[in-house]
Amino acid sequence: MKHSSKYTRQFFPAPEGEFQWLRKTYIDHPPVWCSVDLRDGNQALVTPMNLKDKLTFFQMLVQAGFREIEIGFPAASETEYAFCRTLIEEHLIPEDVTIQVLTQSREHIIARTFEAIQGAPHAIVHLYNSTSVAQRTQVFHKDKPEIIALAVEGAMLCREYRDKCSSDIRLEYSPESFTGTEMDFALEICNAVLDVWQQDCNQPVIINLPDTVSCAMPHVYANQVAYLSRHLHNRERVILSVHPHNDRGCAVAESELALLAGADRVEGTLFGNGERTGNADIVTIALNMYAQGVDPGLDFHDLPEMTRIYEHATGMHINERQPYSGSLVFAAFSGSHQDAIAKGMKWRESHPDSTWNVPYLPIDPLDIGRTYDGDVIRINSQSGKGGIGYLLEHYYGIKLPDGMREGFGYHVKSISDRAHKELLPEEVYRIFQDTYVNLSSPIALPAIHYAQKDGIDAIVTIQSGTGIETVAASGNGRLDAVSNAVRNALNLDYTLKSYTEHALEVSSKSKAVSYVSLQDRKGQLFWGVGIHTDIIVSSTNALLSAVNRMILKTV
Amino acid sequence: MKHSSKYTRQFFPAPEGEFQWLRKTYIDHPPVWCSVDLRDGNQALVTPMNLKDKLTFFQMLVQAGFREIEIGFPAASETEYAFCRTLIEEHLIPEDVTIQVLTQSREHIIARTFEAIQGAPHAIVHLYNSTSVAQRTQVFHKDKPEIIALAVEGAMLCREYRDKCSSDIRLEYSPESFTGTEMDFALEICNAVLDVWQQDCNQPVIINLPDTVSCAMPHVYANQVAYLSRHLHNRERVILSVHPHNDRGCAVAESELALLAGADRVEGTLFGNGERTGNADIVTIALNMYAQGVDPGLDFHDLPEMTRIYEHATGMHINERQPYSGSLVFAAFSGSHQDAIAKGMKWRESHPDSTWNVPYLPIDPLDIGRTYDGDVIRINSQSGKGGIGYLLEHYYGIKLPDGMREGFGYHVKSISDRAHKELLPEEVYRIFQDTYVNLSSPIALPAIHYAQKDGIDAIVTIQSGTGIETVAASGNGRLDAVSNAVRNALNLDYTLKSYTEHALEVSSKSKAVSYVSLQDRKGQLFWGVGIHTDIIVSSTNALLSAVNRMILKTV
Repeated sequence: MKHSSKYTRQFFPAPEGEFQWLRKTYIDHPPVWCSVDLRDGNQALVTPMNLKDKLTFFQMLVQAGFREIEIGFPAASETEYAFCRTLIEEHLIPEDVTIQVLTQSREHIIARTFEAIQGAPHAIVHLYNSTSVAQRTQVFHKDKPEIIALAVEGAMLCREYRDKCSSDIRLEYSPESFTGTEMDFALEICNAVLDVWQQDCNQPVIINLPDTVSCAMPHVYANQVAYLSRHLHNRERVILSVHPHNDRGCAVAESELALLAGADRVEGTLFGNGERTGNADIVTIALNMYAQGVDPGLDFHDLPEMTRIYEHATGMHINERQPYSGSLVFAAFSGSHQDAIAKGMKWRESHPDSTWNVPYLPIDPLDIGRTYDGDVIRINSQSGKGGIGYLLEHYYGIKLPDGMREGFGYHVKSISDRAHKELLPEEVYRIFQDTYVNLSSPIALPAIHYAQKDGIDAIVTIQSGTGIETVAASGNGRLDAVSNAVRNALNLDYTLKSYTEHALEVSSKSKAVSYVSLQDRKGQLFWGVGIHTDIIVSSTNALLSAVNRMILKTV
Repeated sequence: MKHSSKYTRQFFPAPEGEFQWLRKTYIDHPPVWCSVDLRDGNQALVTPMNLKDKLTFFQMLVQAGFREIEIGFPAASETEYAFCRTLIEEHLIPEDVTIQVLTQSREHIIARTFEAIQGAPHAIVHLYNSTSVAQRTQVFHKDKPEIIALAVEGAMLCREYRDKCSSDIRLEYSPESFTGTEMDFALEICNAVLDVWQQDCNQPVIINLPDTVSCAMPHVYANQVAYLSRHLHNRERVILSVHPHNDRGCAVAESELALLAGADRVEGTLFGNGERTGNADIVTIALNMYAQGVDPGLDFHDLPEMTRIYEHATGMHINERQPYSGSLVFAAFSGSHQDAIAKGMKWRESHPDSTWNVPYLPIDPLDIGRTYDGDVIRINSQSGKGGIGYLLEHYYGIKLPDGMREGFGYHVKSISDRAHKELLPEEVYRIFQDTYVNLSSPIALPAIHYAQKDGIDAIVTIQSGTGIETVAASGNGRLDAVSNAVRNALNLDYTLKSYTEHALEVSSKSKAVSYVSLQDRKGQLFWGVGIHTDIIVSSTNALLSAVNRMILKTV
């Protein structure tokens, strides 16, 4: 890749750069959103959508709250013309929704475009011609005055056709390939079109500034938008729109900075579909606002369902790491992240009025139809005790004592590492059961009887590889008495280090779960767990499990 | 999605905002690149890479030109420790490559980390602790002085271990979750670490500012970087590094703006793999520079091969629209784009010294191992005459006369529309053949003899549904004579409107391709094409094809 000298910068920075707008640190109100999924998005598909898919998509956009939807270039294709007519004739456009149609600056195309929207209650006719140096020189072979003449002729035709039309028609102009255009020329051509459209008409005009092929950094684009915003004729009657593409991976940033710089409206698509690298992803821009406490005026409460409809209609895929919608964007596999999320979720329970600030979760997954189960804490060889503990508690109500977490965490990680795969919650629970719960080998306690005197007497039947014997012992409590009996009978040397328990709701039947740790004389800890409806049995099962683990030397 | 009030802004803008750095419009030299694919990228995989995949990946990174590579968190996992030891003991690290390892600020982890890098010629030990409000409050339950003490203790330990180590060790510090941290506190903690590390040591220290979870617009992050850059102690001995994540879809923009704002170094990954939405995509940042004529110091001349290795090793997918690497990012399906590309490529042939400026192609696909064939002009129902013509010429050497393009374009589009699928070049060529070339039904010309007198006499054997007849006629040339014979014999009324031809190289055997158009008395044009090694036969075949199309009324 030794050819960087064959390239140079193809953009023209704005002649002024005040950057006052960059003192704003966030977008405090939503722009006008215009979806171009059915036009720019559709024309970039390997297999363009059919009529049925387009209708489903249109309805999804309406439900999400889009009030301006570019539906196609009806004069360019019979399919797009038919879709436009279907929407109108079958009354599928809600009263508060405006459809938008694209047209080139040629009379028969403009005529056909106005034919296509006949009967629509509200429509935007979107006129464009290409203005960049490259397009003028290589494609159109026209000089600047000829390019302006082309735009002005189209603008005059649009005005004429609009004036003859009974529908509510607004007009939009795009200097296509704006970002490859000299800024003074871009301003001149937009003002020439505005002069035609603003004459004798107070209705706002949309000036849209396409970053048709992104060729500059996002602040360069935003400053170009700021420059036009300052110098457009009758700016108060202009809705300034942006239409970034993602060739440099910056379409979201370009849109956001342009909004600070003075833009009023964003043309983009769901998930950033569109020509080549796609358009600006409106889902991301809107949810970025949402995550900062600003209502974006769009509703993505069931984003997984929208991704399904989108993938079906377009044949495209949502990447695993696509912001907000990707399958892994809330996932935490690594131990420290899991631990922080688990603690953050706990902290939130005790601070229900605080604004959302859970580490590693930019928004609450529930708000957009995702789940904690399966979407957030996931277990593999990178995971840690915090996440594994959280998952046992979340799915199974098992609240591991702090001292157990590390050992169990390492055990689970190493199983995932050897198996070279992610472990599902039920697999983690099965490992937990097999490792700690109600272990009755090599030692079992088939019968225990208690008698209360000063302390407690326990008569314990102990079954081992060598046979069965019955042993009696006293203690401060039942567990202590059983422990003493077992320790003496098996000639073990340990201290009963800890005992804790909690209730466990398992499908309407309440059980007790008990945790026992024993410390041998080297200081090594051995944990055991008992689960049973009877709390006494649960505790002795925990003891027995710990004893068995000590005998087998499983840490 | 009615809960935006549960959120607020979690970031702390820099207390100063001069934004002078935004007057720069492009990045004029590459930063130090540090790949964190094998650490941040790896820990975010459903199935982390095994040793073999990691080795392959490491070698790919070295070949691409990375000179700093974070290879893991060796004290956190046996697998990562073993990988580190394998690289060192098997001498797999080139002399000019520095490995980087991550460590928490705890003595046994730092000790184990230095054990892991024993014998590496050059290494960076990367110390981090979390500094954000959320992490301090919810996870660590420590106040600011305690968090600083944790960092400083770790820094002192790292210094001690470094001083005992024979390898060339540099140190890096990250205030993790920097962007959720108050800026004065972030500055204070970084300076506290610098004070420990810069004392008695002139080696530059890396201060890395992780946007661990992105929570602000890209210029806010960049201005935070600018603020630290202005106020870090002994800035000239600091390498200021950034590490953005993509939660807001802005990791590339954050990196780029931060470079303008004073950052010297970028930590990121290939294709933006990494926790959740991923890290900054270094491929995109580097190729963005390349597209502006700046050598990024990384080499992606065979990006398709790198995507294959990446997808295999990580189990992740490259999205169709991922900048530079996605399958569709150079594709043009729509007619106007195809037309402009075809004209732009032609223009470039006659302007070989101009810098790259082909419409709709941000860079030359060939430079990164993509092809024009299959990657650029692709045919479906949205396509136009320009693209279809370009494709016939590019793949098959067929240069359609201007007058033929529109009709053939519509024909191909409508076939794609009905079949509801993309058409491959060979399918377009077959349609071309079936529609125009050497058509010999319903009329055939089994024999033609010529005699030269004043003009040319042709004796033409004409075979039709009604039988065979032989007809003689004169003309200005051979084609004219044959045309006259056919017109008279079949009682047709047309004018021979145009005749063109060109040579066709088909696998070393040169052929001629001829194009004939006939105009009937209603003004309708009928085109025919002949292809033959003999140019005379080629021309009469073209005429015959056009006659057959006229008889069948196929436009």
